[in-house]
Amino acid sequence: MEINGVEIEDTFAEAFGIQVSRLLITAATEKLAKVAAVEATGYGTSVIGCPAEAGIDAYVPPQETPDGRPGYVIMICNMDKKKLDHELLERVGMCILTAATTAVFDWMEKPDEKFKTGQKLKFFGDGYEKQLEIDGRTIHSIPLMSGDFLVEAELGIKSGVAGGNFFILAENQPAGLLAADAAVDAIKSVPGVITPFPGGIVASGSKVGSSKYKFLGASTNEKMCVTLKEGVEGCQIPENVEGVYEIVIDGVNETAVKAAMKAGIKAAITINGVIQISAGNFGGNLGAYKLNLQELF
Amino acid sequence: MEINGVEIEDTFAEAFGIQVSRLLITAATEKLAKVAAVEATGYGTSVIGCPAEAGIDAYVPPQETPDGRPGYVIMICNMDKKKLDHELLERVGMCILTAATTAVFDWMEKPDEKFKTGQKLKFFGDGYEKQLEIDGRTIHSIPLMSGDFLVEAELGIKSGVAGGNFFILAENQPAGLLAADAAVDAIKSVPGVITPFPGGIVASGSKVGSSKYKFLGASTNEKMCVTLKEGVEGCQIPENVEGVYEIVIDGVNETAVKAAMKAGIKAAITINGVIQISAGNFGGNLGAYKLNLQELF
Amino acid sequence: MEINGVEIEDTFAEAFGIQVSRLLITAATEKLAKVAAVEATGYGTSVIGCPAEAGIDAYVPPQETPDGRPGYVIMICNMDKKKLDHELLERVGMCILTAATTAVFDWMEKPDEKFKTGQKLKFFGDGYEKQLEIDGRTIHSIPLMSGDFLVEAELGIKSGVAGGNFFILAENQPAGLLAADAAVDAIKSVPGVITPFPGGIVASGSKVGSSKYKFLGASTNEKMCVTLKEGVEGCQIPENVEGVYEIVIDGVNETAVKAAMKAGIKAAITINGVIQISAGNFGGNLGAYKLNLQELF
Amino acid sequence: MEINGVEIEDTFAEAFGIQVSRLLITAATEKLAKVAAVEATGYGTSVIGCPAEAGIDAYVPPQETPDGRPGYVIMICNMDKKKLDHELLERVGMCILTAATTAVFDWMEKPDEKFKTGQKLKFFGDGYEKQLEIDGRTIHSIPLMSGDFLVEAELGIKSGVAGGNFFILAENQPAGLLAADAAVDAIKSVPGVITPFPGGIVASGSKVGSSKYKFLGASTNEKMCVTLKEGVEGCQIPENVEGVYEIVIDGVNETAVKAAMKAGIKAAITINGVIQISAGNFGGNLGAYKLNLQELF
Repeated sequence: MEINGVEIEDTFAEAFGIQVSRLLITAATEKLAKVAAVEATGYGTSVIGCPAEAGIDAYVPPQETPDGRPGYVIMICNMDKKKLDHELLERVGMCILTAATTAVFDWMEKPDEKFKTGQKLKFFGDGYEKQLEIDGRTIHSIPLMSGDFLVEAELGIKSGVAGGNFFILAENQPAGLLAADAAVDAIKSVPGVITPFPGGIVASGSKVGSSKYKFLGASTNEKMCVTLKEGVEGCQIPENVEGVYEIVIDGVNETAVKAAMKAGIKAAITINGVIQISAGNFGGNLGAYKLNLQELF
Repeated sequence: MEINGVEIEDTFAEAFGIQVSRLLITAATEKLAKVAAVEATGYGTSVIGCPAEAGIDAYVPPQETPDGRPGYVIMICNMDKKKLDHELLERVGMCILTAATTAVFDWMEKPDEKFKTGQKLKFFGDGYEKQLEIDGRTIHSIPLMSGDFLVEAELGIKSGVAGGNFFILAENQPAGLLAADAAVDAIKSVPGVITPFPGGIVASGSKVGSSKYKFLGASTNEKMCVTLKEGVEGCQIPENVEGVYEIVIDGVNETAVKAAMKAGIKAAITINGVIQISAGNFGGNLGAYKLNLQELF
Repeated sequence: MEINGVEIEDTFAEAFGIQVSRLLITAATEKLAKVAAVEATGYGTSVIGCPAEAGIDAYVPPQETPDGRPGYVIMICNMDKKKLDHELLERVGMCILTAATTAVFDWMEKPDEKFKTGQKLKFFGDGYEKQLEIDGRTIHSIPLMSGDFLVEAELGIKSGVAGGNFFILAENQPAGLLAADAAVDAIKSVPGVITPFPGGIVASGSKVGSSKYKFLGASTNEKMCVTLKEGVEGCQIPENVEGVYEIVIDGVNETAVKAAMKAGIKAAITINGVIQISAGNFGGNLGAYKLNLQELF
Repeated sequence: MEINGVEIEDTFAEAFGIQVSRLLITAATEKLAKVAAVEATGYGTSVIGCPAEAGIDAYVPPQETPDGRPGYVIMICNMDKKKLDHELLERVGMCILTAATTAVFDWMEKPDEKFKTGQKLKFFGDGYEKQLEIDGRTIHSIPLMSGDFLVEAELGIKSGVAGGNFFILAENQPAGLLAADAAVDAIKSVPGVITPFPGGIVASGSKVGSSKYKFLGASTNEKMCVTLKEGVEGCQIPENVEGVYEIVIDGVNETAVKAAMKAGIKAAITINGVIQISAGNFGGNLGAYKLNLQELF
């Protein structure tokens, strides 16, 4: 299948179940909300080595937030519910409560269950905390040096989808990179998803395990490495490709992840020098979701 | 003592020993280097609840880096060497190796010892990795989908100083915040330090333990909370103060932390509405360093 | 009238007619579109001394643009149609055509008339230009060193409203500034308006003419200057106010300007230290529009 | 000549004399200084159609400015002294005086002469202005609604160099663009120069006059247009080149411009997919400066 002169390979992205939280950080200004959102979602590319997968989902203008201030929706994810509970507590407590002028609201539609993040954080108030109601939400108000921090008592989580992905194969590294940037820009307008890697882009697609070092859980995907085109058996890179980037997507459900993949691919193929779109899978045996590229269109 | 009409209280910041690493991330452009630096230093405000304290120290122009590309120096810190070793491995491996076009070089002067971060990461290459020398440095080159990731074999660490700090007491929250912003801007030009909190600013100064909830390790510093001025015994906030922010500084040594405190305070007191500069301590019994505010000037 | 403890003065903003153009700049990425938008709208605060009033209205995601790429809508305004025609030609030709990967589309709904900006710019192609149709729009494609620049043949203009405004009176300069920032953030979500001053904020409200220097068309509004509270007759600043900022709004029509004023004021009064909202007028004799503050609510 | 596998063509950039001003904008924070700098240097790519050529030269930390606040050095240039005088007055008066918390200092070393910009702007104070001395500089303090605006009485100008340039020829548009970005990053660290085009990059190199349209002063350089490689006589683009960007540099003197060209070229050729570096000239008959590419190295 070809769109815009770019081949969409007949393959699928293999994705996995993950527990997802989605919360809104508001602040006095858009910049202050972003500062907190960036700190809270850092060190959150992949649960292979990070304590969570995390990212910014969307900006919400002051006209649409519970406290009439601008805000960012973030998502924090982990396969394990206990770990997610811990990450929510620490990331909200250490990276948002500590940030200037912020407040936190639950922003997950139809959650499977709720974590008592705000209810636990309130103890930081040492007895001076208070309970409020805003917009029908139960809120804890915790006095800080700089004023009061408001946090919703409970934050919803639900079973979502991790590891939606596609590969951008391009004439060279800069073309792959610009296409990846364009893809990330387009995905930003799809609600309910994040691209957790740095700047939304993965430079280092991996395979499960390692051929040589048995102690490794993951190692480089040598068949897709542009500098190993010669000398690696089974190389999967077309001859004219010298740059390959991957976009990884986590979302609240399969529909959102597919919408993000479609928007991202459509944007990537507007870029000069992009040759092929592919995707990463493990033969279909590991993940619960098989997201076929061609069926997106 | 008064400078610029602002009272510098006769008190001291109590600071602690911490293990510090300092590395340079280079990339094809300044923006790409920053993307990696931000991801790698996120979720790193305080070891009270984060796995590390981390931040950006300085920008290094391409003219002054080992590979002639622009870069950012970051610092990653932890009291515990084993934990720091782990954090270096994961933050470099998950947040910099995965980022587009990056390379990593040791940037610590006179280290106490060296961690084999690069030497461990090279295994990701699954046998296709190579060893190079750049500028007299031993470098591992790891093939990725998008090209080769270069990382120095060993990263230096040393015993540094955490928790250098000062408080900005202002007429209201916005004045405290603008002064805090100005302070962070000034501190950015002091080499060898970071301000690990979101945007460099702490909204939530804390005390050790809790009066009411015995299970807590830290709780709000109620004597400095602007919304508790009435009804808290021993309130330490002057009557005309309605906004208090704290700046926390980690550095490679006491000299750097003091220089940062001085630069930050000098900048804060240029701002309209700032009334007093104070600092946080625990009576001097907990930390190894007592950094007297008035002696800075 | 009081909202959120802040007095909304019983006064009005006096606004003027102006000719408005509104165009969409798309590019390969959001950042590249913004680079062009910022260059094209610079040096455009007020026609008192700038060749145009200009600013960014809104971001448009790739899903909603004619060429499927991200874009920014900008507005360029002048009282004089001939001058506006010239500004459009030069700002598009010198600041957008010259910028990497951009294209320009008309984005004005129900224009009064159309300027042949694209039709004139096409001559830069020196005979190599081509005419296309995209989405029913007539487009000129001009070959450049880096590829082809697409620009719509005609750009719509209409009679709009300039000088919608309100004043933020605050306890001190930082409080006024943070409130102004919050106001600008809120106004960004109102379609069809710009805040043409630097960062959307005016530090220097003026009066028509000058008492002392007869050759001046405008001079400082001494009755509103915080450092002249003593010694100026008729000072209009309450005693407890030490910081005053103004927000100026240009829009496609009165409805849009009023919506922006309302959104901005609502945001400003969320900020700690704001005391009063007022507005600038000239007694109602100069401008075609009297926008009453209290009637907004 | 070949560096890093990239051909440096044996040619020269032809540059021109221009009148240059260089001033420092300080503000309460780095961000506020940047807001003013961006507004004041907008609509300033080339005097072919803009009223000035303008850009940001360098950041100056608070430790090194006359008022201890962070600042940006900008340059504003025009061939004509009267026009430059006018542009300085309007750009400082409309884009910096109006911006929050700013001040302006002369930052030109060894000026040829001085313009009385501050001395003229002071009249905006309508008699309430005052004269100060800071750091041996004569400063006018003009009361505004938000506080006092400080501006140095006189701003130095000198005869400088405009139109230093080089072309980046790359495999495709994204490679040329990433290389151009890298070049601009490197040039930012060279003092005394600006890259006045949007983001520092020119997408539309031109030739003097037009073959077809006699009324034009400049038209597309069809021999360097990547989409005209077939069908244009005398095409100067190698067959494997599909993306061409130009970097244009203005500077305080020839030495600074040459240093910028060298730094920019060295950075550009670190990027994957760059094939050749060339430069723009008019046969050497028009400009006062011939800046040979190979002699830079």
